[in-house]
Amino acid sequence: MKENRYEIGSTNIDQIHSDLGQSVMEQLKQIAPDMARYITEFFYGEICTRPGLDMKSREIATLASLITLGNAQLQLRAHVYAALNCGCSRQEITEIVLQMSVYAGVPAAMNAMFIVAEVFQDLDSKSS
Amino acid sequence: MKENRYEIGSTNIDQIHSDLGQSVMEQLKQIAPDMARYITEFFYGEICTRPGLDMKSREIATLASLITLGNAQLQLRAHVYAALNCGCSRQEITEIVLQMSVYAGVPAAMNAMFIVAEVFQDLDSKSS
Amino acid sequence: MKENRYEIGSTNIDQIHSDLGQSVMEQLKQIAPDMARYITEFFYGEICTRPGLDMKSREIATLASLITLGNAQLQLRAHVYAALNCGCSRQEITEIVLQMSVYAGVPAAMNAMFIVAEVFQDLDSKSS
Amino acid sequence: MKENRYEIGSTNIDQIHSDLGQSVMEQLKQIAPDMARYITEFFYGEICTRPGLDMKSREIATLASLITLGNAQLQLRAHVYAALNCGCSRQEITEIVLQMSVYAGVPAAMNAMFIVAEVFQDLDSKSS
Amino acid sequence: MKENRYEIGSTNIDQIHSDLGQSVMEQLKQIAPDMARYITEFFYGEICTRPGLDMKSREIATLASLITLGNAQLQLRAHVYAALNCGCSRQEITEIVLQMSVYAGVPAAMNAMFIVAEVFQDLDSKSS
Amino acid sequence: MKENRYEIGSTNIDQIHSDLGQSVMEQLKQIAPDMARYITEFFYGEICTRPGLDMKSREIATLASLITLGNAQLQLRAHVYAALNCGCSRQEITEIVLQMSVYAGVPAAMNAMFIVAEVFQDLDSKSS
Repeated sequence: MKENRYEIGSTNIDQIHSDLGQSVMEQLKQIAPDMARYITEFFYGEICTRPGLDMKSREIATLASLITLGNAQLQLRAHVYAALNCGCSRQEITEIVLQMSVYAGVPAAMNAMFIVAEVFQDLDSKSS
Repeated sequence: MKENRYEIGSTNIDQIHSDLGQSVMEQLKQIAPDMARYITEFFYGEICTRPGLDMKSREIATLASLITLGNAQLQLRAHVYAALNCGCSRQEITEIVLQMSVYAGVPAAMNAMFIVAEVFQDLDSKSS
Repeated sequence: MKENRYEIGSTNIDQIHSDLGQSVMEQLKQIAPDMARYITEFFYGEICTRPGLDMKSREIATLASLITLGNAQLQLRAHVYAALNCGCSRQEITEIVLQMSVYAGVPAAMNAMFIVAEVFQDLDSKSS
Repeated sequence: MKENRYEIGSTNIDQIHSDLGQSVMEQLKQIAPDMARYITEFFYGEICTRPGLDMKSREIATLASLITLGNAQLQLRAHVYAALNCGCSRQEITEIVLQMSVYAGVPAAMNAMFIVAEVFQDLDSKSS
Repeated sequence: MKENRYEIGSTNIDQIHSDLGQSVMEQLKQIAPDMARYITEFFYGEICTRPGLDMKSREIATLASLITLGNAQLQLRAHVYAALNCGCSRQEITEIVLQMSVYAGVPAAMNAMFIVAEVFQDLDSKSS
Repeated sequence: MKENRYEIGSTNIDQIHSDLGQSVMEQLKQIAPDMARYITEFFYGEICTRPGLDMKSREIATLASLITLGNAQLQLRAHVYAALNCGCSRQEITEIVLQMSVYAGVPAAMNAMFIVAEVFQDLDSKSS
């Protein structure tokens, strides 16, 4: 059954984060295999697919939290891609960042906006 | 035109926060009238009704940010009421808090959950 | 097997936190039963008894983290009792707080010291 | 010589914080006498009277830091009194709080403003 | 009138931040033109030139806040230049950083000091 | 006597941090010699060798605090080396990081784990 949650979590990582997710998880496994397993089983296998809140809303909440933390650049970048995968539009994402300037302060929001810009540019360069 | 933004903001405060919003703003006006005016004009009169992100999504992002900050109890309480006013269900709110335990840590999420519980109890006691 | 982790976690909560732990968990269960279950199963049933780091060292790390967060008063109080239960001396606890003044700043350390003082006074009043 | 720094620090606490400072220091001495001594000797006996930055500017920096931390209410309250003692006007203090809404976010600034209001009311009630 | 605030803000950005300010604002405009406009109009066109607190004191407060946040390197760097432009001496700036070690902790202060050193070296290399 | 504390502190920096410590202190001395002196005298000459908490426990608390701060990469890296010098095993360090995911959140813990991995790889490359 544990294996099952791991497999569900692993599939969810693929769907939410595409290649980027497994690549980060592979890095984490090298140094802390159990931490990678817990995150896969517990967060991606259980929490993030609970009923009661849809995936798009979960990504909105996650982006807001990561922007507010202000020191989770790797995770913010990964979740900008994830938010787009889960149905957020680019405009919705920039609006979330702008709104965060009120709660988390302008420096946190401005730095987040530059990370968002990098992701959008990366996607544009791939699609062109 | 400035007056206009103030009136729009003031109306939005009423719709989002009901009585609680104006009561906090009145308190703030006593000590810092310009700060109250800026928040009304700038945040409630402009940012929070921008197109591109609906009010419910804005409240989800705001709740996530306030839970993550961990020291904005007054604002978190006000935005649990506001989230309900903007169409979030109780279950959606508790799911946001649970999800935040992963990003902001368990203490921040647990303390937020107790504030959410107080708001739900307050509403139940009023409706019964 | 899941049930088993829950039981192990519940027993660990009793040993680490005495009455206080179950009382906080009961409160949490009222509003968010799954969050209480996750914390019991995942943190107390798995993480906190992993080999490789003894319980006393885990409590030292936990105290340092909670003092640094600066807004987790409920949890800090609970873990001062827990640290004593897990073999920390009073002097070790006050030394941890003092050391944190260098990393987390004097306000965070000073406020933590007052919480530590309340716990010590509570224990003294019970033992006398 | 150490004794000397302690006496200088103790005199500075009196001048900066009036009665409030010694009262907090007395509380701290009960639980952690060395921490009280370090703060007196090191911060009040050495840092806060270094040449190169006048006391008023030091209080402006301290207020900004405490507002930004967002969880140092006791210290913020004490330093609003201290800032007034060191030559800040009430308007300068409320302007600092307002400016912090941009860097630390509106919730941190708003909560700070309510603490400032309490101090001003306390002083008004004493002077009337 | 809005246009006017934008122009006032834009002039203030030039005076406070020299070239660096417009360069950051240009970057921000590419991804989030409204956020750039809000910051120009609201912060630089209104807040930062309010009477009641002089520009030098505002920069002292801003430096203290950015050092305390600990994750606003881009903004801290920009405001070290700005503080010098607004009349702070180099010694005043290093004293602010040193004082912050007490409130925000030694790591935040030490990392800020290295950023300050880079700015001073940049200015020395340009003037030589 | 002051000189004495400085020498004791300097010796402790050598023992705890090996070459890395003096190299960071030299950098700091260039820009802020008094800050380097205070850290050497006060923290390394007095606090970190106080009786009542052994060096290994102090490093456990320090690691937990730095992981929780989330923006002290330079210091975290230095204290992973220091923790190994003070008797922590590699497994104890990775367990501390894993435990911090519960208190400080998964992003802070994950980023810390990558820093720990770099230190372990650096040591492996030197010993091979």
